[in-house]
Amino acid sequence: MLVTNDDELGEVRDAALVIEDGVVVAVERAGAQGDERIDAGGRCVIPGFVDSHTHLVFAGDRSEEFAARMAGAPYGAGGIRVTTEATRAASDDELMRLTRARREEARRAGITHLEIKSGYGLDVETERRLCEVAGQFTDDVTFLGAHVVPAEYEGCADDYVELVCGEMLAACAPRSRWIDVFCEEGAFDADQSAAVLHAGAIAGLGLRVHGNQLGDGPGVQLAVEMGAASVDHCTYLSDADIEALAGSDTVATFLPATDFSTRQPYPDARRAIDAGVEVAIATNCNPGSSYTTSMAFCIALAVRDMRMTAQEALRAATLGGARALRRDDVGHLAPGARADAVILDAPSYTHLVYRPGVPLVAQTITG
Amino acid sequence: MLVTNDDELGEVRDAALVIEDGVVVAVERAGAQGDERIDAGGRCVIPGFVDSHTHLVFAGDRSEEFAARMAGAPYGAGGIRVTTEATRAASDDELMRLTRARREEARRAGITHLEIKSGYGLDVETERRLCEVAGQFTDDVTFLGAHVVPAEYEGCADDYVELVCGEMLAACAPRSRWIDVFCEEGAFDADQSAAVLHAGAIAGLGLRVHGNQLGDGPGVQLAVEMGAASVDHCTYLSDADIEALAGSDTVATFLPATDFSTRQPYPDARRAIDAGVEVAIATNCNPGSSYTTSMAFCIALAVRDMRMTAQEALRAATLGGARALRRDDVGHLAPGARADAVILDAPSYTHLVYRPGVPLVAQTITG
Repeated sequence: MLVTNDDELGEVRDAALVIEDGVVVAVERAGAQGDERIDAGGRCVIPGFVDSHTHLVFAGDRSEEFAARMAGAPYGAGGIRVTTEATRAASDDELMRLTRARREEARRAGITHLEIKSGYGLDVETERRLCEVAGQFTDDVTFLGAHVVPAEYEGCADDYVELVCGEMLAACAPRSRWIDVFCEEGAFDADQSAAVLHAGAIAGLGLRVHGNQLGDGPGVQLAVEMGAASVDHCTYLSDADIEALAGSDTVATFLPATDFSTRQPYPDARRAIDAGVEVAIATNCNPGSSYTTSMAFCIALAVRDMRMTAQEALRAATLGGARALRRDDVGHLAPGARADAVILDAPSYTHLVYRPGVPLVAQTITG
Repeated sequence: MLVTNDDELGEVRDAALVIEDGVVVAVERAGAQGDERIDAGGRCVIPGFVDSHTHLVFAGDRSEEFAARMAGAPYGAGGIRVTTEATRAASDDELMRLTRARREEARRAGITHLEIKSGYGLDVETERRLCEVAGQFTDDVTFLGAHVVPAEYEGCADDYVELVCGEMLAACAPRSRWIDVFCEEGAFDADQSAAVLHAGAIAGLGLRVHGNQLGDGPGVQLAVEMGAASVDHCTYLSDADIEALAGSDTVATFLPATDFSTRQPYPDARRAIDAGVEVAIATNCNPGSSYTTSMAFCIALAVRDMRMTAQEALRAATLGGARALRRDDVGHLAPGARADAVILDAPSYTHLVYRPGVPLVAQTITG
């Protein structure tokens, strides 16, 4: 079975994907000729996963904080500072090495395109370095200076926001496509978040928001009002949030592995989808709240615990991710798209949920 | 870090495991000499997983039933008949091929010893064949003729029990170490289950029980009363069940991936452990209710959703499984044990939970 995510084609049996110079040129019946052939042998072929939310560039490990949380400690945004300390101390070479290893792991998990955020520097020089390292791995770099208020600005959040919107943005904007802000109790409030997004827009960056992770909050409404491409987490969604999203171009990006790893309730994706909200699923790979590159794991949780169908979850992890990044070239396999595909060791994508935890990605094809 | 599960040693840093002829002869400080050396390079080494509950010998696929369940259909024992039909129709060669592939997948997932049940034959000849195939892969073969009442005995469950206890047991006992019964509404009641276990004991088999999966029921009490080695599922445990288990030699084996895949509530393992119950975790790999070989996935669920610590979950998946099979030779790495170990691509076993869905088994060493 071939899944193209193309509205006309959708799921095709006995199909052949014809690729030239890294781009899909046709979807034909099996038996097509070509210089080089890969026979999927009855296995399911899907578009490569598009991971629209990662924090791959960091140093250090927070497995002890994780173990404490599993033993009952609550999750808060403060742990970000622990990673910031380790990341600031790491050399560029070390960050490159760590990020490359994670990127390779993600590729083995079937992720063919991903976004990478800064946000563990929280000073001008380190944020700039993180954007540069991220840029070695993707053209979807997100400047997230407004991840959390660093320790040295404790009690002076507005001063830190001024730094983010000024000198830090100036250093990072040329190296980024997006700006993001963590709009949440314990991070940045609605006014501070709006200031960051506004400054980013003026600098020519697209907008993204972390919001509604730890409770109801202004993140979703702010994202919609400011025309953000995506608002991410959405663990808590009020009726008004759903209504706002449904009438907007803002994608709601769910991060189910984060709800898993922080032992939060899972959001009801069914409710959002039924209301007409465009949804994505992403890994949020980071050392604090979701240290996984397994999009298959995220899909399984989305189906089991967020009431998506396997088909909806697959689309959310491919086409949904592409839409959250406002890209047409990835997340589907129609002619003209990048030839990014995954061969699953299974006859159907349902097996991503039916066989949880089993590494089913047999081969990842990029371009 | 080396985890031995030995009471004295437990977790050892900078350790070397000395192996001769497939058996652990010593645990020493790093730097030990030997003819052949594997350097784990700072990664965590744990005892191989002991999977005390699998149904690896079957034909057919039930992904459509799974998808329907995820869309809201309830789980019942009836689906077993679908697999029975496909399994009866499969040749010995086909069953060998399918089982071998699953056994290899389990090995890649770090499972170094496993139990295999029959139970998809439900007639004398096929049950015998399944026990024979299972015996090619393990010495822990379990005769599960009393899995469910087959279609041809609909309404005549007692007659089927008579067959199981008579001709079928006679054909399967020489090929098995254990007898098991699914004691549950929709399968076998307490009297029928007791009859099966009693007959098995007379035939020299050890006792196992499937119980308390779909609701409160007599399975746990029956298992304890009859001295079963393990009662498996335990999704529903009353106070009386916990009390009975705590005062017994019967292991409570949890199957978290089954609760995941059937969308049942997770049992509270914390409550059982705190009461002094000996616990195990197993995959229950089967095509209907838990089609996974990922013990790491089971461990992650046990910590996140059943309130075990990572250490408890690891022990339950190694030493706990060995105790559920009443074996001293596996599940730990003390001198005299089988040299079955797993090198994790991580510095600590906490990462099995901290990095959910990521295939962390770098190398599986058996004997």
